[in-house]
Amino acid sequence: MSGRIRNRQFAAKVVAAEDAAELIKPGDNVGMSGFTGAGYPKAVPAALAKRVATSREIGRPMKVGLWTGASTAPELDGALAEVEGIELRLPYQSDPAVREKINSGRLDYTDIHLSHVAQRVWQGIYGELDVAVVEISGITPDGDLIPSSSVGNNKTWLEQADRVILEVNSWQSADLDGMHDIYYGTALPPHRRPIPLTHPSDRIGVPHLKCPADKVIAVVETESPDRNAPFTPPDETSRQIAAHVLDFLDLEVRSGRLPRELLPLQSGVGNVANTVLAGLQDGPFEGLTAYTEVIQDGMLQLIESGTLTMASATAFSLSPTAVERFNRDTAAYRDKIVLRPQEISNHPEVVRRLGCLAMNGIVEADIYGNINSTHVMGSRIQNGIGGSGDFARNAYVSIFVTPSLAKSGAVSTIVPMVSHVDHTEHDVDVIVTEQGLADLRGLSPKMRAELIIERCAHPDFRPALRDYFERAQQSSYGLHTPHLLDEALSWHQSFIQHGTMR
Amino acid sequence: MSGRIRNRQFAAKVVAAEDAAELIKPGDNVGMSGFTGAGYPKAVPAALAKRVATSREIGRPMKVGLWTGASTAPELDGALAEVEGIELRLPYQSDPAVREKINSGRLDYTDIHLSHVAQRVWQGIYGELDVAVVEISGITPDGDLIPSSSVGNNKTWLEQADRVILEVNSWQSADLDGMHDIYYGTALPPHRRPIPLTHPSDRIGVPHLKCPADKVIAVVETESPDRNAPFTPPDETSRQIAAHVLDFLDLEVRSGRLPRELLPLQSGVGNVANTVLAGLQDGPFEGLTAYTEVIQDGMLQLIESGTLTMASATAFSLSPTAVERFNRDTAAYRDKIVLRPQEISNHPEVVRRLGCLAMNGIVEADIYGNINSTHVMGSRIQNGIGGSGDFARNAYVSIFVTPSLAKSGAVSTIVPMVSHVDHTEHDVDVIVTEQGLADLRGLSPKMRAELIIERCAHPDFRPALRDYFERAQQSSYGLHTPHLLDEALSWHQSFIQHGTMR
Repeated sequence: MSGRIRNRQFAAKVVAAEDAAELIKPGDNVGMSGFTGAGYPKAVPAALAKRVATSREIGRPMKVGLWTGASTAPELDGALAEVEGIELRLPYQSDPAVREKINSGRLDYTDIHLSHVAQRVWQGIYGELDVAVVEISGITPDGDLIPSSSVGNNKTWLEQADRVILEVNSWQSADLDGMHDIYYGTALPPHRRPIPLTHPSDRIGVPHLKCPADKVIAVVETESPDRNAPFTPPDETSRQIAAHVLDFLDLEVRSGRLPRELLPLQSGVGNVANTVLAGLQDGPFEGLTAYTEVIQDGMLQLIESGTLTMASATAFSLSPTAVERFNRDTAAYRDKIVLRPQEISNHPEVVRRLGCLAMNGIVEADIYGNINSTHVMGSRIQNGIGGSGDFARNAYVSIFVTPSLAKSGAVSTIVPMVSHVDHTEHDVDVIVTEQGLADLRGLSPKMRAELIIERCAHPDFRPALRDYFERAQQSSYGLHTPHLLDEALSWHQSFIQHGTMR
Repeated sequence: MSGRIRNRQFAAKVVAAEDAAELIKPGDNVGMSGFTGAGYPKAVPAALAKRVATSREIGRPMKVGLWTGASTAPELDGALAEVEGIELRLPYQSDPAVREKINSGRLDYTDIHLSHVAQRVWQGIYGELDVAVVEISGITPDGDLIPSSSVGNNKTWLEQADRVILEVNSWQSADLDGMHDIYYGTALPPHRRPIPLTHPSDRIGVPHLKCPADKVIAVVETESPDRNAPFTPPDETSRQIAAHVLDFLDLEVRSGRLPRELLPLQSGVGNVANTVLAGLQDGPFEGLTAYTEVIQDGMLQLIESGTLTMASATAFSLSPTAVERFNRDTAAYRDKIVLRPQEISNHPEVVRRLGCLAMNGIVEADIYGNINSTHVMGSRIQNGIGGSGDFARNAYVSIFVTPSLAKSGAVSTIVPMVSHVDHTEHDVDVIVTEQGLADLRGLSPKMRAELIIERCAHPDFRPALRDYFERAQQSSYGLHTPHLLDEALSWHQSFIQHGTMR
C-alpha cells in the first residue's frame, strides 16, 4: 500500500492506466472528474485516447459519451477530441480541440447549467452512466475517498456509475483532507428538503466521498500536476473595468443597498474577473466572503491578505505559481476554504438565499441588456454557459463585464441585437466595460439602450449604435423594444463577410 | 361599522373613492393590488383616472408610477392608461390600452420576473413606494386585514408604502377568510433563512395581512365583481396539444421518471394551459397537486372532481360562471386551496425543491429551442414574462405550449431564430404544438432542430424550415448552432412588410 491508499481492498485494485482504460467499453457514458483544469484524471483519459486511436486504425472506431464537472485539460478533453473519441460532450468545455470539433460539426455538445447536471443525471435524461473516472487525493483506512482539487460532479458520478475507476494523485497536497464538504442530502422531488446552508462557511456534509469498494474496478496511481494556465497580469482595460465595479459596490454600500462587508462574491473564470478580485485588495472593503465556483489567484490573494475571510467553491483554478504556494502551505487555508459539489456551489436555492454578487464575463451584450455568453457570431460555441446562469438568475446583483472591443478592435461587444441569448433582459442588472458602467435595474428597454450606448460602448461604435437606436425608434414595428429586423444582426454578418464590424 | 369592517379605528376612516383618490399626489409611486383580474381595487383607480383627466384639462398633467401584482382589469390599468396617467408600469400587464401606449412609445414598462418584484422593492430599486391601494375582503376586530381573491405583492405594498388606502369589497366571499397563507419570514440578505415549505399544502405563515392603522389614510367600501374573461371552450388545436402533454406525462410515469401522482403542476394563464388542465380530468392520473400562480377554471374543476387534491397559488383567474360557483360554496374549497404572496408562490427556492412541472404558453419558439414569450416581431410587447421564468428556470420539467400557427395561418410560431428571447435553450425542456411534442432534454442544438421541425412545426412551414436548417449547415460561421444571420429574422421582416411569413 502506498502512502495515499490506506485501505487494503482498494490497494488490491491498483493497475496501470492502460489496463484501466481497457475496462471502458465502446459506447459507454463516462463521467470524469475535473473542473476548470483542477482534479481531472491525468492518466486514464490519455490511455483511453490511445486505445481509441488504435481501435480506429484496425477499423473499429470507438466513442464514449463524456460528462465532466466543467472544463478539464489537454490530457483529457484534448486527447479524446483529437482522436474523435467523444460521442456527446457535456456540460462545459474550453479545450481548443474540443471546440474545433464542435464548431466543425463533428462533435455533439449539450450546454447546460452546471447546477442542473447532477439532477439531470439522476433523472436519467442522458441515459445510464456506465463508468466514473474520478481523481482523488487519497483513500482512508475505512475506504472513504479524499477528494482532490475539485469536487464537481464526483459525488453523482460515484453514486450513479455502474463501474468506478479511481486515480489517486499524490501530487495533490495531503492537507486537502478536511477542506471538502460533501452534502449527501439532495434528492429528487418529491423528497427534497431545504438545503441547510445560510452562510458561505457553513459545513453541512462530510469531508469524504463514499463509494462501495465492489463498484471500483481499478485504481490508478498518478503524480501529476493540475494543468492551469499561467496568470496573465491585469491589463489597463481590465483595471478600468475593475475600478468601475468597485465604484459601483462602494456606491451601493453608501446608499445602504449593500452591507459594508458586501454579500458573498461570485466571480466567473477569466482574467477580467480575476482583476476585479485583485482590485478588491486595495478597495475599502473588509470581512468579505465568496460563494462561487472556482478559486482563482485573485481570490487566494484576498484570503492571504485577510480581505476575504473565507471562500466556498467547487474547484481551484490556480496558476502554476499560485498552486505552488497553495500546495506548500495548504493547511493554512483549511479553515478559510470549503470545496463543495457543484450542485451545491451553484444551487439556485442557496445563491438566492445568500444574495450573491455575481460577476461574469461575456461574449457580447446588446443595447437592451440581453447577454450572449457562449456563441461567437451566433453559431460558433466558445466555451459554454458554465455557472453564469446559475448565479446571474438568482443573484442579488448580476453584473456582466467585458472589454468594449474584441478581435483587435474589429468587433464591438455592444451590438444592436445579440446573436445568441444566454441571459435575458430580465436577468441582467449591470453591464460594465472599460468605458463605464450601466446600472439597468428598474429601467425600461429604451432607458437601458441610452445608458448602455453612452456608458459602455466604445466611442468608435457609439455613433453607429445611436444611429440604429434613433432609426429603430422611427420605424420599428413596436416601440417597446425598437428594432430594425433587417439590420439587427448586420454587424455580425459584416464581421463574417469582411472581418470587421466597422 | 359595516359587516366587513369590524374594527373601529379602520371604520372611522371610511371615505368616498373620490376623496381617497385625492390623497394620491402627482408623481407618487403607487402599489396596487391585483393579479390576473382578481383582487384589484375597483373604485379608487377609476376616481384617480378622473382626477388625472381633470388635471390635464386645467393644464396640470399628472402621472403616477404604477406597480401591481400582475395584470389587473379595465377599471384599473385601462382607465389610467387611457388618460395617460401612468409614468412607469411594472411588472406584468395584459390590458389593451396599456399595451397600445407601451408599443406606441408613450408608456415606459419594465418587465421583470414576478418573484423578483418584492425583493427589488425592498432593495429600493424603483424608488420609494408612496401609496398602497389594496383590495381586501374584510377587517377583523383586531385590525388584521383579510385578503381578497389575490395576494400578489400586497404584503410588500402594505409594509413598504408610506400611506395606505384600503378597499373593502363585500362582493368577495366572506369565506375566503382562512384560505390565505401570508409568510412574514422573507428578508434581504444576509438575513435570509430557508423557506420551510416542502409540500404545496404546507401553511408557513398567517391567514391575515398586517398594517398599522396609523398608515391607513382612507378606507373605501365597494361591492364589485372581479372582472375576468369568460371561459373559451377548448378548440381542437388546444385539445391536441393537451393530448400530447398527457401522453408525455404518461410516458414519464411509465419510465419511472415521474411518480404516479406526478409532481406539483404549474400552469400559465390562457386557454391552451387551461385545456391541458381540463385534459387531466380524463387522464390516468390521481392525487395531483398544483403549485402555481393562478387558479383557472380547469384547476377548479380538477379540485371539484378530486383529481387534484390541493392547489397553491397567489390568485384566482376564474370565468364569471366559475366564480359564481366558487363564491356560492367557498368554504368547501378552503382546505384545498392556499393563496400566498407571489414572492412565495413563484419563489425559485420552492419551485426547485418541489420540482414543479411547468407549462406555459409562448409567442414563438425557434428551431434550437429558444423561447420568445413577450415580443411580437421582436419589438412589440404582448403581456410580459409573468411567472414563466420563475417556474421554467427552476422546474423539474419545463414545458412550453403553442399552436403551430398564429394570425390565421400567416405566422409560423416555429421560426429559424426567435426575434426575442425570454427562455434560453438552457431552460427549455419540451415544446408542444398541436402537431406533436419535442422532448429536447439532453440534446445538442442540431438534434433539437431536427426534432422541433419534424414534430412541432406546421406542415406548411416545414419545408422552408428544413431548407433553412440545411443551408445553415452548409455555410454557417460555426456549426454548433448553424445560422444564416442575413436570413435568420427574415420571416419576421416578411410579416412586417407583407403581413405573412408565407
